[in-house]
Amino acid sequence: MGQIVYLKKCDIFRIKNMLRDQNDTIAAIATPLGEAGISVIRVSGVRAIEITDSVFKGKASLRGALSHSIHFGRIADPIAGLIDEVLVSVFKKPHSYTGEDVVEISCHGSHYVTAKILETVIGKGARMADPGEFTQRAFLRGKLDLMQAEAVADLIHSKTALAHRASIEQLNGSLSISIHAIRQKLIDLCSLLELELDFAEEGIELTDHKRVESFFDETITDLEILINSYKYGRIIRDGVKAVLAGAPNVGKSSLLNILLKQNRAIVSDVPGTTRDVIEEAILIEGIAFRLADTAGLRKTSDLVEQEGVRRSRNQISGADLVLLLIDSSEIITADGLDIILDVVQRFSDKVLIVLNKVDIMHPEFSLNSFEACERISISCISGQGIDLLTKKMMQQVISNCDPTSSSVQIQSERHRDLLKKTLTSVIAARSTLLENLSGEFIAVDLRAALNYLGDIIGITTPEDVLHNIFSKFCIGK
Amino acid sequence: MGQIVYLKKCDIFRIKNMLRDQNDTIAAIATPLGEAGISVIRVSGVRAIEITDSVFKGKASLRGALSHSIHFGRIADPIAGLIDEVLVSVFKKPHSYTGEDVVEISCHGSHYVTAKILETVIGKGARMADPGEFTQRAFLRGKLDLMQAEAVADLIHSKTALAHRASIEQLNGSLSISIHAIRQKLIDLCSLLELELDFAEEGIELTDHKRVESFFDETITDLEILINSYKYGRIIRDGVKAVLAGAPNVGKSSLLNILLKQNRAIVSDVPGTTRDVIEEAILIEGIAFRLADTAGLRKTSDLVEQEGVRRSRNQISGADLVLLLIDSSEIITADGLDIILDVVQRFSDKVLIVLNKVDIMHPEFSLNSFEACERISISCISGQGIDLLTKKMMQQVISNCDPTSSSVQIQSERHRDLLKKTLTSVIAARSTLLENLSGEFIAVDLRAALNYLGDIIGITTPEDVLHNIFSKFCIGK
Repeated sequence: MGQIVYLKKCDIFRIKNMLRDQNDTIAAIATPLGEAGISVIRVSGVRAIEITDSVFKGKASLRGALSHSIHFGRIADPIAGLIDEVLVSVFKKPHSYTGEDVVEISCHGSHYVTAKILETVIGKGARMADPGEFTQRAFLRGKLDLMQAEAVADLIHSKTALAHRASIEQLNGSLSISIHAIRQKLIDLCSLLELELDFAEEGIELTDHKRVESFFDETITDLEILINSYKYGRIIRDGVKAVLAGAPNVGKSSLLNILLKQNRAIVSDVPGTTRDVIEEAILIEGIAFRLADTAGLRKTSDLVEQEGVRRSRNQISGADLVLLLIDSSEIITADGLDIILDVVQRFSDKVLIVLNKVDIMHPEFSLNSFEACERISISCISGQGIDLLTKKMMQQVISNCDPTSSSVQIQSERHRDLLKKTLTSVIAARSTLLENLSGEFIAVDLRAALNYLGDIIGITTPEDVLHNIFSKFCIGK
Repeated sequence: MGQIVYLKKCDIFRIKNMLRDQNDTIAAIATPLGEAGISVIRVSGVRAIEITDSVFKGKASLRGALSHSIHFGRIADPIAGLIDEVLVSVFKKPHSYTGEDVVEISCHGSHYVTAKILETVIGKGARMADPGEFTQRAFLRGKLDLMQAEAVADLIHSKTALAHRASIEQLNGSLSISIHAIRQKLIDLCSLLELELDFAEEGIELTDHKRVESFFDETITDLEILINSYKYGRIIRDGVKAVLAGAPNVGKSSLLNILLKQNRAIVSDVPGTTRDVIEEAILIEGIAFRLADTAGLRKTSDLVEQEGVRRSRNQISGADLVLLLIDSSEIITADGLDIILDVVQRFSDKVLIVLNKVDIMHPEFSLNSFEACERISISCISGQGIDLLTKKMMQQVISNCDPTSSSVQIQSERHRDLLKKTLTSVIAARSTLLENLSGEFIAVDLRAALNYLGDIIGITTPEDVLHNIFSKFCIGK
């Protein structure tokens, strides 16, 4: 028990130390860059109101402004003169995003004006914010826990309804609640075991070993469910990488086109997004399938073509799902069969065999060789089998992860890895219990588990890990 | 005088009529599209607060909110559930951008979230705003005159300090003041002349013809100064199109590179802008020079090359400034000379002859043929003459327009054309006066002039012109 209190004191000291370094005022453009009606420059820190006020001319000084109030006025610079007519929103600590005094300057959405206002604010003593620094401050001031802060980045990048749902729920704290619940159970157990240690010399045994054992089993199950939810969580967040493979001229590009036409590209209703996402993405039941067409697979002596085939193989091995196309209008050659069998054998768990051109199937075409595999017949000309294909694609993907097993999904590799470490420590603690070793040994493993869980929500997370998390944010968030 | 009052009544009726059509509530994304900290959805109209309140869950209803207040809460949809945590800013009419009730919803800067919130607001009865419709409403409700509204678009697209200055001053009303001043003078004169008409039957002559004549002269001078300011105003707003022309291999691309290196590209400090502006742009004394490299000019029988030469000639004829490069390290051939003289003769007012490679000038190279032209010697290798070249480029450009002649600059072709028409009418009125015709005839021309000036500031502007102006805005402004 004493050990746990010590850890907490240590954390508070560490966070206070980080905050001391952060007493300067930061500023950044918070809206996307581009030309539009409005841009917003965000300023946060002890001098946020004072600095903005020094370049702002409105009806009254911002220093007397109430929290959550908006003020019309002008931003001017001693040299450049009038920069823009703006609206300034004032948020007073702790009732702001960061928990500090925050000012948001809403100006005309011009590159020049936006950059100039930021420059003016920096000139008056604000510092250019690092990526994610506003959210990092919100975390350090206790406005969000680490999982919620991470959810902000996921939310911004979410592109599908499912990805959005998962990140808004994480921001809302539903994952934090699960982690806190497991952590609290472990803390209670730890206390119990440490209490027992205090009385051990007197020969009193307080804990019921059977109860502790079943408690361990419960915790292990909880952790396993969360860890397993990552498979589905990752698919929700990042989508499925599906590769179209097969010999040349089997209809890979035709299939790509027909799939794209049937399942509207996920981002087509938001103009301007296609430049930074993979363009060939389709939605099947809310999951983004990122389709990659590949060079035809065949044995060849042509060096350039060999390189193409090599790349196709790389694509296949990195894929979540492989649609292996076979042209059923022709008899498969021995070479062709070799290639197909090679792919099927090496990647059997993610290959879906797609027999194309079944409307003109060769009378002697034989399916004998692929009996053991999941397969489906289609025709890109008649459209036959395409609906069924998308259903099979979805089935293949979720067959490895049960979406219904957990109400929340882990979406981050960091969380999964820490949960795995937690699980290992809890399993070790249980073994120690079963071996009837002293409670002291069990407590060592439990404390390790507590630390791992603390790392997830940001209580005990090392500074370099924190830095790494926030550096992946965009500037202005 | 009666005529003028009639016109005004007519305008008020027209504007009221337009407003009646605009009693619906509009919504749009007001920030650029992209992933960032914040996006803003703007809602304006009689139901703006009611509609937002119906999807918003905060501490209290927005219906009771004070103007210029900010409210933290959540936007939720009956089907999608929680969409985001947001800040809602409330502006009550008439103290808003449009003069109507306005709500700005500030959410996480995610494509998905932003589009979803807009969708939810539209689902509750708002209509997707047309391009520029918020500013159009601001104009119709008298928050801005038409010149100021047009300045908003220019401000958003401004890329240099000078362009920004001109548009912020126009937004600030300095051009409107000039136009209003001229208009007021004409209205006063019109009243005077019409008053005289009323007393004409009694043989009383109220106006001093000499005074009226000198008044006309003043107004004509004022109009001419404004019209002439367009040349410089256009250069400020759109920059200068400078074409690098000459025979193949005279050093056009070397010159382009050296100019780009010396005069930092104007947009390099604003990331993300290069995709929609011409990339080879340099700043000289605050003016953007958009440099276009061209295919070498020479007589050729090659069809593809002929097409290249044809395009070069098109570039030259559309340019504001032509840098005609000549390689001084070689003697010019007869064919080469023909081509140079052809360009010089046809575009003498905008050609600057640039003798390149003067560090290795051929001893027999002769400049006799170009004595009548402005010319400058440079070396792209040693850098000799480059500073002087940029000075000459600037001189050449401003030699046709005196930047100091007017404190304000007309930047829009529409304004220039209407000012020209105003000028023509005022000149006609003066002629009528000098011909000693009745004041009635003078008044006809003056009323035409007043209408043209009214069109500029939006008092008498036809609806289709208004529509055309605002349709060039971005959506959300």
